[in-house]
Amino acid sequence: MTTNPLHRLMNPFSIATFGAGNNFMKMGTMQALSILKDGYTGKFYPVHPREKEVMGHKAYDSVAELPEPPDLAFLVVPSSQVVPIMEELGKKGTLSAIIITAGFGETGEDGQKIQDRLNEISRQYGIRFLGPNCMGIINSEIALNTTVMPYPSAKGSFGFASQSGTYLTQTIPYLKKRRIRFSKAISVGNSANIDITDALEYLGEDKQTRAISLYIESIKDVRRFVEVARRITPNKPVLAQYVGGSSAGARSALSHTGSMAAPDHLYEGMFRQAGVIRVQSIEELYGYGNMLALQPALKGRRIGILTNSGGPGSAMANALEKAGLDVPRFSEALQSKIRPLVHDHAPCGNPVDLTFHLDIDTLTQKIPAIILESGEVDGLVLHGALRKGYLIEIYDHIKEALNNAPVEALLKDFQVIPEQSLALVSTYKKPVGISSFYDRDDDYTAAYQDHGMPVFDSPEKTAGSMAVLYRHFEVRQRPPWRPPAVPSPPAAALDLIRECRDQGQSNLDEYQSKRFLKAWGLPVNEETMVHSSEEAIQAADTLGYPLVLKASSPDIRHKTGKGFIHLGLDSADAVADAYGKIQNAAGKQVPVLAGRMLKGKREFVAGIVDHHGFGPSVMFGFGGIFTEALDDVVFRPAPLSIEDAGEMIADIRSKKLLGEFRGMPAVNTKTLAEIIHRLSLIPLAHPEIGEIDINPLIVEKDNLVAVDALVVLKKNRAER
Amino acid sequence: MTTNPLHRLMNPFSIATFGAGNNFMKMGTMQALSILKDGYTGKFYPVHPREKEVMGHKAYDSVAELPEPPDLAFLVVPSSQVVPIMEELGKKGTLSAIIITAGFGETGEDGQKIQDRLNEISRQYGIRFLGPNCMGIINSEIALNTTVMPYPSAKGSFGFASQSGTYLTQTIPYLKKRRIRFSKAISVGNSANIDITDALEYLGEDKQTRAISLYIESIKDVRRFVEVARRITPNKPVLAQYVGGSSAGARSALSHTGSMAAPDHLYEGMFRQAGVIRVQSIEELYGYGNMLALQPALKGRRIGILTNSGGPGSAMANALEKAGLDVPRFSEALQSKIRPLVHDHAPCGNPVDLTFHLDIDTLTQKIPAIILESGEVDGLVLHGALRKGYLIEIYDHIKEALNNAPVEALLKDFQVIPEQSLALVSTYKKPVGISSFYDRDDDYTAAYQDHGMPVFDSPEKTAGSMAVLYRHFEVRQRPPWRPPAVPSPPAAALDLIRECRDQGQSNLDEYQSKRFLKAWGLPVNEETMVHSSEEAIQAADTLGYPLVLKASSPDIRHKTGKGFIHLGLDSADAVADAYGKIQNAAGKQVPVLAGRMLKGKREFVAGIVDHHGFGPSVMFGFGGIFTEALDDVVFRPAPLSIEDAGEMIADIRSKKLLGEFRGMPAVNTKTLAEIIHRLSLIPLAHPEIGEIDINPLIVEKDNLVAVDALVVLKKNRAER
Repeated sequence: MTTNPLHRLMNPFSIATFGAGNNFMKMGTMQALSILKDGYTGKFYPVHPREKEVMGHKAYDSVAELPEPPDLAFLVVPSSQVVPIMEELGKKGTLSAIIITAGFGETGEDGQKIQDRLNEISRQYGIRFLGPNCMGIINSEIALNTTVMPYPSAKGSFGFASQSGTYLTQTIPYLKKRRIRFSKAISVGNSANIDITDALEYLGEDKQTRAISLYIESIKDVRRFVEVARRITPNKPVLAQYVGGSSAGARSALSHTGSMAAPDHLYEGMFRQAGVIRVQSIEELYGYGNMLALQPALKGRRIGILTNSGGPGSAMANALEKAGLDVPRFSEALQSKIRPLVHDHAPCGNPVDLTFHLDIDTLTQKIPAIILESGEVDGLVLHGALRKGYLIEIYDHIKEALNNAPVEALLKDFQVIPEQSLALVSTYKKPVGISSFYDRDDDYTAAYQDHGMPVFDSPEKTAGSMAVLYRHFEVRQRPPWRPPAVPSPPAAALDLIRECRDQGQSNLDEYQSKRFLKAWGLPVNEETMVHSSEEAIQAADTLGYPLVLKASSPDIRHKTGKGFIHLGLDSADAVADAYGKIQNAAGKQVPVLAGRMLKGKREFVAGIVDHHGFGPSVMFGFGGIFTEALDDVVFRPAPLSIEDAGEMIADIRSKKLLGEFRGMPAVNTKTLAEIIHRLSLIPLAHPEIGEIDINPLIVEKDNLVAVDALVVLKKNRAER
Repeated sequence: MTTNPLHRLMNPFSIATFGAGNNFMKMGTMQALSILKDGYTGKFYPVHPREKEVMGHKAYDSVAELPEPPDLAFLVVPSSQVVPIMEELGKKGTLSAIIITAGFGETGEDGQKIQDRLNEISRQYGIRFLGPNCMGIINSEIALNTTVMPYPSAKGSFGFASQSGTYLTQTIPYLKKRRIRFSKAISVGNSANIDITDALEYLGEDKQTRAISLYIESIKDVRRFVEVARRITPNKPVLAQYVGGSSAGARSALSHTGSMAAPDHLYEGMFRQAGVIRVQSIEELYGYGNMLALQPALKGRRIGILTNSGGPGSAMANALEKAGLDVPRFSEALQSKIRPLVHDHAPCGNPVDLTFHLDIDTLTQKIPAIILESGEVDGLVLHGALRKGYLIEIYDHIKEALNNAPVEALLKDFQVIPEQSLALVSTYKKPVGISSFYDRDDDYTAAYQDHGMPVFDSPEKTAGSMAVLYRHFEVRQRPPWRPPAVPSPPAAALDLIRECRDQGQSNLDEYQSKRFLKAWGLPVNEETMVHSSEEAIQAADTLGYPLVLKASSPDIRHKTGKGFIHLGLDSADAVADAYGKIQNAAGKQVPVLAGRMLKGKREFVAGIVDHHGFGPSVMFGFGGIFTEALDDVVFRPAPLSIEDAGEMIADIRSKKLLGEFRGMPAVNTKTLAEIIHRLSLIPLAHPEIGEIDINPLIVEKDNLVAVDALVVLKKNRAER
């Protein structure tokens, strides 16, 4: 266990409220009602300037009057009162606060100043706080609910943290209807002091929590998030939705919680690196998070499908396979066990489709047991278990035939659902995903939900929940992670940057850039700077033909198509001729870089980008002249271990290029991963670097060589 | 109006049932109950071998006894009885039938034979039928429902056709809860006679139907589907889910309805060509289909966002922009109209976020009106309109403060929802998408749904519905479509194929292939066949240096890396030398193809594939040596008009290559579209062709030239 401030904040023995009175239309009062009425057994100290009693509890004039320092202070007061109250609380010795009040960092510069002042108070007195601009917490373990909505006291195993308070208030009725129950839920608001990474760490350490979902608009310290997530994700699944990656999403995030978002592809890479499973909607965040919290781990990719109807069976088969799972055809032996239980011609090969079949036990017990104990699947999806809901639905049509017997009489036989149906997961220790178009009107849907088996309202979502379980299975296979150590920069690298700064250059020229990378142990094309055609010919004799000559000057960044670059020079004459052409093109005497021409069909791109507020990321992808047109590049926040880099390179769409290619051997991915790993260390050792671009990184036989490279410095210190 | 058989089948004045009796646990009886009880006013003739009365209606022994030929026959009898009954019906003069019975084409060869026999009867007597292995129809216009589930008589505008009967039976309670109402719904089952394309055509012609959704496992005649869809989609939106594109999905489809599916990428291209909007789940098929049926067309891409909570606002902003829509920042003028209505600091720039705000009229009337009449948006999404559901939810917490006034007393003020809220769409003629986490427990959700404004249960789905509206807007912009005429094959092309057949070749060699394409007017690299090094040098003099020499022999299909191909030969010596090397590599005397070497960085691939059961498709994409690794190719069913081809080429991921590229001018997309168009005609003129592969199709300055090509014939006539 860490010293995470939420361990204390989430478990108070006493709570003081500020802003709760007796007018139940006020937000503070409604939140206090939740504290008082949902089962919390700690002490309750309302602080109120005028009322003598608040909802039957003695009220206190001020912090000073309180009989003891409250474990937790809960503030829903006008924004001007927040700072003075927090100071008093600090003096009193309170160590945790939740600030619901809005109007701080999200409103602009003035608000940000007050928010900064709150952090000063935090540092001075050691008082840690959630918010401002949040909705508080739910801790089902101690039945503490500070939100405006009543929360049922049932304990869940699904942990939730959110940069939107709505997702643990307005959605509570939605969650209740689906029996999605929080272990703990945390609204972090502006994350001024305690942020979403703290919430993740806390939920990771919380024993009650078995899976975690995060709604994210922006993360302040990406590297810390990755470190925390890497500790958690090998054991406990973490899901995230990120909405700040588009320009409209980023604008909305800024005005909502004052947070600075970054482009989607950077977060995508960050989640991959962190082992966090990304989802695209609040529905998935809840539904799949809850599924992972309740069901055992998937231990392979083979899924069985059992359905009472062909459409949902086909839809699940298709969705599962598209998500990378297998729907194996069942063995003849397994099919022959199923066949006697179903209609003639009913498909038994996976999907098993019972078609119109009214024996519910066949669908929910007999066949599931046969499939799950066969050893041929790692998980099962089941569609169409329904009974009571169906009967209610058709009652109007059949009541006459039943002499108008009341519907209740028909339903009386349906009070019990056999234990075997509900114990499938606990018996076979494999995940079972249920889908039904019936909600809790149906006794099967209700019973499944009440027994820890989530029911999805469309077959594709059930398949999707298996895909998320499978992604967690993959994350669990990752080797143990140690954050890579960042070494001190090599002296030669520091010299090159100093040289560049001294010359007033904004970037290292190509020759400097490659020497810089070489100093970091990266493989670069052997080159010499030449200053005459004679020197160029000498260089060819040393490096070997064919030769490449390029103008080398910090003011020439784009060389293509302008006569600054000459390839495939295969004779002394050709070298001398090209040298002269470069000088002509430049219109002045420029130094020329001579290098051996490499032959390789496969070209990659690698580099560093540094997005303001996100920090440096490594980039890797399909390189050469088509880099931009193909846009097949992936990103990861730096630094990367060699294993991380190995995962990253396999993420490109064109990963077939890493294998054997047109008679050439497979790329040495170990070497490539080592290169990406080393590259990833550079921006952390040199915070003054803003961008590195290696393109192409050519595959020549068994080697990988950086043929062109550029290192760009940050414009000014403010950017660092 | 066409002679579509469903016009008759869907509107019978009399129905004869076969298999309906008095045992309401039998499927046939349940279906007859639906006919009798859901409002249908036509005649009902139960045919039953033993019963004298069926559910109070006189029963008939046999078809012969019926007082008149019924307009529609409805068969739910054992499969062995289907053929004799259909024959009797044919003789009687009945022209429409629905065959619910399963056990035909979906079960294998024997079942297929009986299915074929049904089609013979159909041809003989003119009786058209739906099914077998289907669930029948719903026609809300005449309150006719033949499914096993009761269907409310309310008339909808959403047309639905499905290869799964479940999607118009088991899901009916689901649809009712969401107020999704069919105009007409059709279960096509095995599509033996009337198929999903007939259903599409019928729904396209049906005035009650304003949008159409299709659940598809396979389409029998792809070209007819495209033609029908192209007539409909410029006016009426058509959505489709296709699940047969994976191997598990295809296997499931085969056992479900006996249909032969094809890979996903072929269907993807087919839907694009048809103007059909593809969705990925049954939920989207229903929810978005219903949205399109009820709301006006979107006429631009600018969407306003109004929310009572930041999270849903950010999520919608992000999802909309990712889907290609705009979330424009509102003008200062517009913001200044909104600002007085909201809290200090509440964001007004789009999203407009009211935060915690209890005046529902501000959210649902005042601000929507301001935004919709501003002219700054083409549509609006609205989250968080809620009232009654919220009050019920918090009642337990506040009842004491209200002296335990019953909840009904609190709700009595909430009987009416102001007309303006519900008339937003009709007033401003722009689509409004609603999202709420409250279902019909809330009076706003219920009222919206009852007034033709679908309510989605998560903000991302509301954004998704706008994306679908936008896609329909794009489809409406397409130029009018005329199916391209397929010309007779040129004599030279026929000669080449005959020559190839005569020689016993399975494919045209490269030289033949290019002459074949040239005969079709496609631009190919100028080439000569040479039989000695002297002839090769002569060819160079004619064509120009540098030259390319390649072995040309039908038994040499893969030339790379084996000494069969020599590029960039820039002198007579080099040409002679290369010629000799080719002969050595072949180990025998082989003809050699001499061509000018083209220079172009950009290489595309184009071709024809012919998937069994789907028919020929055109292929286009990123070409050259990376074709396979990048897999950036798109498909369309042949034939394509020039406009279709223009759309197709813009679908590749690397479409930036079509623009200016590294100092070279943009590709002449008009010429490229013309090439793809011509290519698309070939397989229809030559059904004996199984595959065409042009790679690379090189861009040289302003020209596009096929540099390598292969035409492959089908193996035998059975494949044609």
